[in-house]
Amino acid sequence: MGNQSNNVDAKNLVIAYLGGGSLGWANVLVTDLAMEEQLSGTVRLYDIDYESACLNAKIGNMVTARADSKGKWEYIATKTIGEALTGADFIVASILPGTFKEMHSDVHTPEKYGVYQSVGDTVGPGGLIRSLRTVPMYEEFALNIKKYAPDAWVINYTNPMTVCMRTLYKVFPEIKAFGCCHEVFGLQKSVASMLSDYRGIKNVERDEINVNVLGLNHFTWVDKMSYKDMDLIPLFAEVAEKCNDSGYLGKGEENANSVFRDNNLVKFDLYKRYGLIGAAGDRHLAEFMPPRYLLNKETAESFGFALTTVDWRIGDRKKVVERRMAIVNGKENLSLTMTGEEGTKMIKALLGLGDFVSNVNLPNNMQMDGIPKGTVVETNALFSKDSVRPLYAGGLPDDVQNLTIRHVYNQECIVEAGLTKNRQLAFNAFVNDPQMSKADYEDAKKLFDEMIENTKKYIPGW
Amino acid sequence: MGNQSNNVDAKNLVIAYLGGGSLGWANVLVTDLAMEEQLSGTVRLYDIDYESACLNAKIGNMVTARADSKGKWEYIATKTIGEALTGADFIVASILPGTFKEMHSDVHTPEKYGVYQSVGDTVGPGGLIRSLRTVPMYEEFALNIKKYAPDAWVINYTNPMTVCMRTLYKVFPEIKAFGCCHEVFGLQKSVASMLSDYRGIKNVERDEINVNVLGLNHFTWVDKMSYKDMDLIPLFAEVAEKCNDSGYLGKGEENANSVFRDNNLVKFDLYKRYGLIGAAGDRHLAEFMPPRYLLNKETAESFGFALTTVDWRIGDRKKVVERRMAIVNGKENLSLTMTGEEGTKMIKALLGLGDFVSNVNLPNNMQMDGIPKGTVVETNALFSKDSVRPLYAGGLPDDVQNLTIRHVYNQECIVEAGLTKNRQLAFNAFVNDPQMSKADYEDAKKLFDEMIENTKKYIPGW
Amino acid sequence: MGNQSNNVDAKNLVIAYLGGGSLGWANVLVTDLAMEEQLSGTVRLYDIDYESACLNAKIGNMVTARADSKGKWEYIATKTIGEALTGADFIVASILPGTFKEMHSDVHTPEKYGVYQSVGDTVGPGGLIRSLRTVPMYEEFALNIKKYAPDAWVINYTNPMTVCMRTLYKVFPEIKAFGCCHEVFGLQKSVASMLSDYRGIKNVERDEINVNVLGLNHFTWVDKMSYKDMDLIPLFAEVAEKCNDSGYLGKGEENANSVFRDNNLVKFDLYKRYGLIGAAGDRHLAEFMPPRYLLNKETAESFGFALTTVDWRIGDRKKVVERRMAIVNGKENLSLTMTGEEGTKMIKALLGLGDFVSNVNLPNNMQMDGIPKGTVVETNALFSKDSVRPLYAGGLPDDVQNLTIRHVYNQECIVEAGLTKNRQLAFNAFVNDPQMSKADYEDAKKLFDEMIENTKKYIPGW
Amino acid sequence: MGNQSNNVDAKNLVIAYLGGGSLGWANVLVTDLAMEEQLSGTVRLYDIDYESACLNAKIGNMVTARADSKGKWEYIATKTIGEALTGADFIVASILPGTFKEMHSDVHTPEKYGVYQSVGDTVGPGGLIRSLRTVPMYEEFALNIKKYAPDAWVINYTNPMTVCMRTLYKVFPEIKAFGCCHEVFGLQKSVASMLSDYRGIKNVERDEINVNVLGLNHFTWVDKMSYKDMDLIPLFAEVAEKCNDSGYLGKGEENANSVFRDNNLVKFDLYKRYGLIGAAGDRHLAEFMPPRYLLNKETAESFGFALTTVDWRIGDRKKVVERRMAIVNGKENLSLTMTGEEGTKMIKALLGLGDFVSNVNLPNNMQMDGIPKGTVVETNALFSKDSVRPLYAGGLPDDVQNLTIRHVYNQECIVEAGLTKNRQLAFNAFVNDPQMSKADYEDAKKLFDEMIENTKKYIPGW
Repeated sequence: MGNQSNNVDAKNLVIAYLGGGSLGWANVLVTDLAMEEQLSGTVRLYDIDYESACLNAKIGNMVTARADSKGKWEYIATKTIGEALTGADFIVASILPGTFKEMHSDVHTPEKYGVYQSVGDTVGPGGLIRSLRTVPMYEEFALNIKKYAPDAWVINYTNPMTVCMRTLYKVFPEIKAFGCCHEVFGLQKSVASMLSDYRGIKNVERDEINVNVLGLNHFTWVDKMSYKDMDLIPLFAEVAEKCNDSGYLGKGEENANSVFRDNNLVKFDLYKRYGLIGAAGDRHLAEFMPPRYLLNKETAESFGFALTTVDWRIGDRKKVVERRMAIVNGKENLSLTMTGEEGTKMIKALLGLGDFVSNVNLPNNMQMDGIPKGTVVETNALFSKDSVRPLYAGGLPDDVQNLTIRHVYNQECIVEAGLTKNRQLAFNAFVNDPQMSKADYEDAKKLFDEMIENTKKYIPGW
Repeated sequence: MGNQSNNVDAKNLVIAYLGGGSLGWANVLVTDLAMEEQLSGTVRLYDIDYESACLNAKIGNMVTARADSKGKWEYIATKTIGEALTGADFIVASILPGTFKEMHSDVHTPEKYGVYQSVGDTVGPGGLIRSLRTVPMYEEFALNIKKYAPDAWVINYTNPMTVCMRTLYKVFPEIKAFGCCHEVFGLQKSVASMLSDYRGIKNVERDEINVNVLGLNHFTWVDKMSYKDMDLIPLFAEVAEKCNDSGYLGKGEENANSVFRDNNLVKFDLYKRYGLIGAAGDRHLAEFMPPRYLLNKETAESFGFALTTVDWRIGDRKKVVERRMAIVNGKENLSLTMTGEEGTKMIKALLGLGDFVSNVNLPNNMQMDGIPKGTVVETNALFSKDSVRPLYAGGLPDDVQNLTIRHVYNQECIVEAGLTKNRQLAFNAFVNDPQMSKADYEDAKKLFDEMIENTKKYIPGW
Repeated sequence: MGNQSNNVDAKNLVIAYLGGGSLGWANVLVTDLAMEEQLSGTVRLYDIDYESACLNAKIGNMVTARADSKGKWEYIATKTIGEALTGADFIVASILPGTFKEMHSDVHTPEKYGVYQSVGDTVGPGGLIRSLRTVPMYEEFALNIKKYAPDAWVINYTNPMTVCMRTLYKVFPEIKAFGCCHEVFGLQKSVASMLSDYRGIKNVERDEINVNVLGLNHFTWVDKMSYKDMDLIPLFAEVAEKCNDSGYLGKGEENANSVFRDNNLVKFDLYKRYGLIGAAGDRHLAEFMPPRYLLNKETAESFGFALTTVDWRIGDRKKVVERRMAIVNGKENLSLTMTGEEGTKMIKALLGLGDFVSNVNLPNNMQMDGIPKGTVVETNALFSKDSVRPLYAGGLPDDVQNLTIRHVYNQECIVEAGLTKNRQLAFNAFVNDPQMSKADYEDAKKLFDEMIENTKKYIPGW
Repeated sequence: MGNQSNNVDAKNLVIAYLGGGSLGWANVLVTDLAMEEQLSGTVRLYDIDYESACLNAKIGNMVTARADSKGKWEYIATKTIGEALTGADFIVASILPGTFKEMHSDVHTPEKYGVYQSVGDTVGPGGLIRSLRTVPMYEEFALNIKKYAPDAWVINYTNPMTVCMRTLYKVFPEIKAFGCCHEVFGLQKSVASMLSDYRGIKNVERDEINVNVLGLNHFTWVDKMSYKDMDLIPLFAEVAEKCNDSGYLGKGEENANSVFRDNNLVKFDLYKRYGLIGAAGDRHLAEFMPPRYLLNKETAESFGFALTTVDWRIGDRKKVVERRMAIVNGKENLSLTMTGEEGTKMIKALLGLGDFVSNVNLPNNMQMDGIPKGTVVETNALFSKDSVRPLYAGGLPDDVQNLTIRHVYNQECIVEAGLTKNRQLAFNAFVNDPQMSKADYEDAKKLFDEMIENTKKYIPGW
């Protein structure tokens, strides 16, 4: 992709941020851009919540004004998506599709029928209904990008990742989009910690853990892993064996918020069953698997992970909002420490300022065997001057392939259903989700109807 | 396939019958061969039950001696498979993998955990365990065919069809084998009956109903159907609508044994859900689908089909055995009326005595979109002089494709597990079967272990 | 293709004929329709030469009025393509792209540089320049069919077949078009004649010779051939050996116009070199091969085929025009004998009035291994009610594949060059044609420029 | 590839060198290993010329004894290939298939018929006959590697690269082999020099020129090229325009031996014709193209490149042999300066001592669109711990694809002909080579027979 000549000036970049009013990712971007001296330019923040974009712009400009900010950026909130996109070199998309009200329905309505979800934003009944909301938004994005900035690179962070990416490419096949997710980083951190605990090798950075990644976003697998000249599969196998009951909490993870804490028990169990290492957090992996880890709250707990409630999210958000106001009002300072996200590094690589390899979501050309061409997969790719080239990752063994392909086609159906407003097709995907096998068929129908009703504001025309 | 010159003398054919002591199919072959005047030669019956093969040989020779027998054949029971195969032009394989004891375990052991099966011979826990028994038998067949009759055409009738065919081709890739099944005929008969009842068009033969078939054996679909210049999809849709509650029994079906009676309610429901017509009997289709039709005995009944018990099969078999003895002893005559099976017609076509199109199981070259190359699919093919050429059948819509591909990979795993004696892989397929989603994971483990124990006589080395 | 319900009334068909003023094919259509009692309706003749279309309409209606005409048709010449296409059930396309003036340039201008062509209408410098003229015409057809009759079946007879078909599908991917060519019939007739001469089997019809066809139009191959239960490859090999020097003229061919006479010497030579049977006339096969058969006029003669001059065509046409006027004026009668073309038979099959298998040009789905998906190939297909389904034909051996794929990509380039008016790309294809390897590169440039100049009237915008 | 755990000790490596008596590459290996402090171990030299291997071992051990040698290696000449291979971690293969006598026939016999070659070792009549000699040697290598060192990484340097690699993988599909060639480096050096001359950017290393490589060895193409954030395609286009007549000699190239000097005129011409940059030396590119650059000696000269005669090679070799003896006898010192080859760097990467991306020859999995799976292509790949993963390189435009695929199938035919001793198939490839289009068919036959006769010592069984 990206064959045309593209000599962008790294000191005069234009970045458009779709979802520029968002709370978390905006801070990440502001921080990482401030710490990168090779880049500067303008960031245009577009959000349906214009006020929130304005607040973020204010924070961004405050940071730029600070002496410790190396990259100098002007932040502007725009009222239209066209203003944000026109002339953009890069587009970042990070939105919340709907509100906590819809998210509440996604996550908790299925509980009535005994269907529990740990996240509810990717697959499972919640993820699929969230997908239906997301498709028309991303259809709109794709059409606007085609119109205003067809040559820009597009970096997506929104979940459900696969559905977002697939919609972008279906609507505008020439788009230069890729999707970033930090879930694999979690595995790398855990293994770096194992290296310290079980091999006495300290201070290994997570990106020194080489992994061959393959699968779908939030349902990725690793079949090869090394640190320098050391094969790490035997280390993982050893820890999986030893910590079979207790789980293993990597460094820092002990103190993590218990909602997100990952003790690897699902990964250990998967490794024993399939001989492959799951490369996302246990909370995500569990949702893709047929019921074993999510039979009910207790099984989740027995595997050491929690079900994130929307009430918790609402509470958490309140704190974030307050903190943002404190920053805007000068009562608190945004701390300029590396966030660990790779967006800035990717932008630099695409400008020709340093190649690197990382995992990324892209339409399958051939990087994964056995997955239909064009559907979105996550594998490693080489980022370099104006190009993101997937590395051949091989294929999954047939048993894991079977678990995976089920979601490939389910997500294909959901995207198609979203684009064509096909209710029967959406239901066919919904009822075929592994989590739904716990519900009776008639219950599934009722649940689907109720969840569609709850989300109707965001799926006009249904 | 079959590129070498192959001028076989239709009057001096050698047919080897693996499973030549079988009760049902042997009669079919004897009858159809007797009624076909263009063919004659020798049939060699090989069976692990040599006595039974001898009885069948006796019947065959009695029929040949009759005046109303047009095709003249000598029937010989052989003690070794080598004797049967050496010099064979055609090989027919129709065996029962194991005994009623193992079949009883296949069908009824899962009921302990609430898993009900209508047939239990293809997929579902019963079908998969039966597959494990079948793989080593078909591995042996393939090796013997490679050794004794590598150029012969091989016609398989044994279930599980897909597993048998896949094993033959994995072990001996140059084999000229195809698999025949009459399940699609049932749909054609039903529709011919609808033509009479709803359109007043009488006496249509089932093979006048043109269908485009695609899918897996016992889980085939029809996306195009016509009679002469009439599109039959609207007719099917109309009957599905009208007989939504009562079901529709085609001509002759009213009187069919209630165990096998098919009132199309599953097909009608599938049509409404997926817009496609299931092309096997409801009993088979139900087993491939995620639980809806087989939640328990009552749901099966509510969809109008029965769960075939092994006790019923034992009783039925007793009658067939008695009837065979009556024929051998001259107390009863084998009636020479067309059986409706197509084996003889296929043999004639392969000899160059008349081309025709029918549905058949073959490794996928390209006849079905979206299914991995080499795995076995059922589509139409043209039978002609020394060749069976698949017709391009297109692909399934994504939702139905998803239901289908799950069994493709599950059966791939089972064949591989059978060939390599890989217990974990076998269990991974087993627990991923749609019927198993009704059982808890721990129960699935127990059930698997018990069923493996029950079938151990036929899976040496496990 | 053609999945929608399509219940067309065979007695009220509407056929649109693009090129309806043409001399040869119009008579074929009139004759074949008149002899087919199951069909009747209206034929709309559209041609840029409206007067000629009117004359054909007149002849058609005269035939309909005759007592011996079984199918009753009304023939109407239309002034616009829209009138012809609106409501059409079938569309026949048979045009001459340009005039004899352009054809003269195609065939004879290359002779200046020592490049001789036997036909000059498919590949070679003449065929490629003719292609450039044809692409914009077929682009126009495709757009009109999309607009006026998107569901109609389209039967193409125009050469270059591959280029016409590819243009139709590139411009309107949902088109239901296929391409018919009688070249393979010539091989079948030759072999039927060999059966009589060398095996004493008389009166075999050409369509009783079963062939597996694969390749490109006019460069097709046969790797399997039989008559009833007899493998015919050994017969062909025997005759190729015996008639190595003299060639073999099939029945009727002795008296054929010497311009078109085919004594099989090219086919015999190809068989010895590649072990495969060329399935088009020697004049066509020779043009696809690297120079051996067409080094100069003498080599052509030594292989027993003639170079068709345009002067001969002009003379021949004059006679046809005169004969048509004699018919219009009632001085001569159109003889109603079967033409041997299959168009009517195909129409009947598509209406559901009789399935059959024949060779046909279609985009490759999978029917030919090793040829890119979407490019046009010629293989057998099953014609039935509203469907043309290719049969899996296998692939060519690597050496023949190499000869073939060169033309696949050359024709892809020419279609693309024609659609995008890309002169360099057109030249890159031109200079890569096997016939052009006899010319120096600088000569090739001059020749290309001259031929483009000669055809400029038909390639506006270049 | 290479999934099993493989913890090799970088300080105790075993390298087997097939062709260990070779003059050039042995020095390269000795030098590069001596300069690399992270590696040490044993090098086993195997050669049919045992004496020569002994001399190389002596030199190697002399170097190891030197103080300035950082990597410490023991060199051993072995009498059998089994001794060399058993226990090897890496295998280097670099042989001359035959002697100067056969090479003389390859290069000069075709001149009798007006066919001139600049190298004659890859394609063209010389390359194809050389291929026939090479196939049985590499078949033997593959069988021995399978037997003695199936898990070792195999680095091939022998030409014809594609044929060597394809033979290895056909005979032993699980082999972990890749092929290295420095031709692309030449383009990178030229462009680094252009950067200096036309942009004033000095001292750019050739591996700082990022290229996307795709094609066949010696017929590679670059469709994307950058230095840091600068797109280099416009620079190349500018120089191609400006130096259209004179050619462009990069730094150092002015003084290069005139036999190998590359002034880029062929690359400039190709760029104008195809819009793509040829990524091998002009001498190699010219041989893959249909005659334009190699019509005769004069055209070659007009494009600024020479035809390397075997006499020149013989003279050159004499000097190399003398120099080696001088080193063995201590009269001259092997200079320890970086050779620019990447073999040592690749070994380090495979051990986990530093990832990097470079171009490499591998079977096509998917890295190149449009090229059959399994045939050997050259693209970039990521070298890391026990893995070489191709990067997705995209595909070639149809016109260049057509030039390329012709050699793909020709080389497939030659490998198959070599393995099966199929003379007709070998000739079919031979006569289809673009260089052969200058010869008459009958001359091609004579030439082929003569060249086969000349090489018969190395193709036993023909």
